[in-house]
Amino acid sequence: MTKIVDHDQRRLLIAEATLRIIRQMGMKGATVRNIAQESGLSLGALRHYFSTQDELLNFSMRLVKERATVRINELVSIDMPLFQKVLRILLELLPTDDNKLAEMEVWFAFTAHYRSSGTTYDAQHDGVQDLVERLLHSLKESGLLRPELDYTLETERLYAFIDGIALHALLDTKRVDYERIVNVVTYHMKSICTEESFLLER
Amino acid sequence: MTKIVDHDQRRLLIAEATLRIIRQMGMKGATVRNIAQESGLSLGALRHYFSTQDELLNFSMRLVKERATVRINELVSIDMPLFQKVLRILLELLPTDDNKLAEMEVWFAFTAHYRSSGTTYDAQHDGVQDLVERLLHSLKESGLLRPELDYTLETERLYAFIDGIALHALLDTKRVDYERIVNVVTYHMKSICTEESFLLER
Repeated sequence: MTKIVDHDQRRLLIAEATLRIIRQMGMKGATVRNIAQESGLSLGALRHYFSTQDELLNFSMRLVKERATVRINELVSIDMPLFQKVLRILLELLPTDDNKLAEMEVWFAFTAHYRSSGTTYDAQHDGVQDLVERLLHSLKESGLLRPELDYTLETERLYAFIDGIALHALLDTKRVDYERIVNVVTYHMKSICTEESFLLER
Repeated sequence: MTKIVDHDQRRLLIAEATLRIIRQMGMKGATVRNIAQESGLSLGALRHYFSTQDELLNFSMRLVKERATVRINELVSIDMPLFQKVLRILLELLPTDDNKLAEMEVWFAFTAHYRSSGTTYDAQHDGVQDLVERLLHSLKESGLLRPELDYTLETERLYAFIDGIALHALLDTKRVDYERIVNVVTYHMKSICTEESFLLER
């Protein structure tokens, strides 16, 4: 048993080293050699834990996604008014601090890497579309969504808007700062929710 | 004179070959060797026209931008109701056909390449933010924008929304097809314009 735990922990440490490397050097730095060095392992030892580079990269991307999921589930479990909760969860998806900016950097690097390598790419891999759908659904079920709206198009619009803001926050970090992100996301959510949703909650 | 024209034309042909390579193989295929082959030139001849790979890539990206500008200026000069014109221009920015999808692919590959290479990156290089601002400004000046809206936040929102849709159309081409793009962009623009803007125009 001990050995299995060690094996998993070592894989986690290697994935974390991979994320640090991508953050610092971009995808082009994510060579087996660099990752081995950052992990303090020999090339042979690294290959013991991950037999191919693709396997290692996929594992690291999964780590990014899992971390985001943990943060979001924590928010889901907190007792607070629904409009505020949805807003907080959407902001959790966006690069509002250095840590999340680094994760977004990894997402971007991975996505570009997989596109250019011709590997089959799963556009839903990051789970954002699914999450946006569930958030709008809960607002609708609670009667907070303005009734005159087209629910399907609102889902598409919110999903595009969130990923667009994320992209801009990544590419233009100085201009699209924390305050701007909060303002525009709040503005959008207020525009699609009834006034009662956010007025009563204050 | 003839020689100068030839030189420029040859540079254009090489840039077009570069775009074809990126489209087919992604950024990792954009090696000097592959581009020389695609252009039907020797490595030495290619270096005569572009002394570094970065110089060639920047020139190619500029070509993508110039082509989009030409298409948009054509639309601007056509006589049609403003709401329709703004909608057509926004759709021109989005990958609604194979040609524009290839350009978006190039944009994405370039952006990722420059991020990971650590070169200074100009987030406004593609001119989309500037164009979105000008479109909303013209709608506002003509009284087509709903007066109760926050103009600054609407600009930020539209810019994020357009780039988000573009990203989804690139990454999830099958789902985010022409019809879906037209529907959601029209929906958004109707939501921020007065009813007169689009009802009178039909």
